[in-house]
Amino acid sequence: MVYRPTEKTEARKAAMRQRILDASLLLVSTGGFSAVTINAVAKDAGIATGAVYKHFDSKAQLCAEVFRNATEKELAVVRENALAEGVPSVRLLKAIEAFSARAIRGRRLAYALIAEPVDTLVDTERLRYRLAYANIFQKLVEDGIESGEFPQQAASVSAAALVGVISEALVGPLTWSAGSENAIDKTDLIRSIQAFCLRAVAVRDPAFT
Amino acid sequence: MVYRPTEKTEARKAAMRQRILDASLLLVSTGGFSAVTINAVAKDAGIATGAVYKHFDSKAQLCAEVFRNATEKELAVVRENALAEGVPSVRLLKAIEAFSARAIRGRRLAYALIAEPVDTLVDTERLRYRLAYANIFQKLVEDGIESGEFPQQAASVSAAALVGVISEALVGPLTWSAGSENAIDKTDLIRSIQAFCLRAVAVRDPAFT
Repeated sequence: MVYRPTEKTEARKAAMRQRILDASLLLVSTGGFSAVTINAVAKDAGIATGAVYKHFDSKAQLCAEVFRNATEKELAVVRENALAEGVPSVRLLKAIEAFSARAIRGRRLAYALIAEPVDTLVDTERLRYRLAYANIFQKLVEDGIESGEFPQQAASVSAAALVGVISEALVGPLTWSAGSENAIDKTDLIRSIQAFCLRAVAVRDPAFT
Repeated sequence: MVYRPTEKTEARKAAMRQRILDASLLLVSTGGFSAVTINAVAKDAGIATGAVYKHFDSKAQLCAEVFRNATEKELAVVRENALAEGVPSVRLLKAIEAFSARAIRGRRLAYALIAEPVDTLVDTERLRYRLAYANIFQKLVEDGIESGEFPQQAASVSAAALVGVISEALVGPLTWSAGSENAIDKTDLIRSIQAFCLRAVAVRDPAFT
């Protein structure tokens, strides 16, 4: 296939845009969103500062796109595990395991995505994606109720609550260790989060009712 | 007692500062942090724009102080309930009830405090206060474990998880209704959050282990 000049130009533009996004993601993964400046991105991408502005109106807009791309990946991992075939409780455990293990492994990026104080534009994306996570968990909880594995409960409340548990229980450990090489006791932490969530959604006829 | 001139000046300064904070809180309570502008604050406080800047360097700094003052009140309510005398599970239920009922009643302010996309300075305060809430719940969970009411669990993980549940399960309902007069089914929502939390921390020897 022969590319016409405009196609070549478009491809070059897209490649440059991707290069900017890659450089930005690397900055976020090592220093958080606070490490992203147009100057640093331009330097790392090996282009002029003005060239960055040809693709992104502002640092905030660039950060929001980096946030969306990175979060889509994490969301896909949760979706794959949570909505796979199988017993709902096992799917819940697997989704928590996969999300948490990735967050602990890439802790600087995970902290940036989940909790780092950022500007309004990224914060708005965070709210949107928390709803996307909640929608996945709601389907999982509904499956569990329908199959009889989980007791009757308000699935939408449990779903939002699960999103809260998973992110909030990781924020502390990720914050403390975001800047250091200190190992989190990964296995213990993930098991505690799993146990909390499983008790919360899967327990039937508990002693206290 | 006779005030010296400097004392009078100090008192006047403090009163003016409070007036600015009161006007700002009222703006946040009706339109969120996005409604706070130095112009609007000055107008509502009945003073000149320049006078606001004598007390606060920036809108962000003013918002951070409004956030702290408002959040301290909510934190005190949770602390009172969570760390009162009595059975830990009952204290947990009361703390959730009190916090959630206040949030639903003052939903616009609660949404602003918990979830509204805001600038970095307020976001930083949010992280700090989430830790303060977690510390209260950690003490509560430890009391429950010590008294034998709650099973053995990682109290710090459960505590962070509880903060996540309570805020995240409220965010959705508060967001949908923040701008409207639609009633949230308050009782159902609070009961669902309470049930989720109680199962998560208080259940002993569940069927799935």
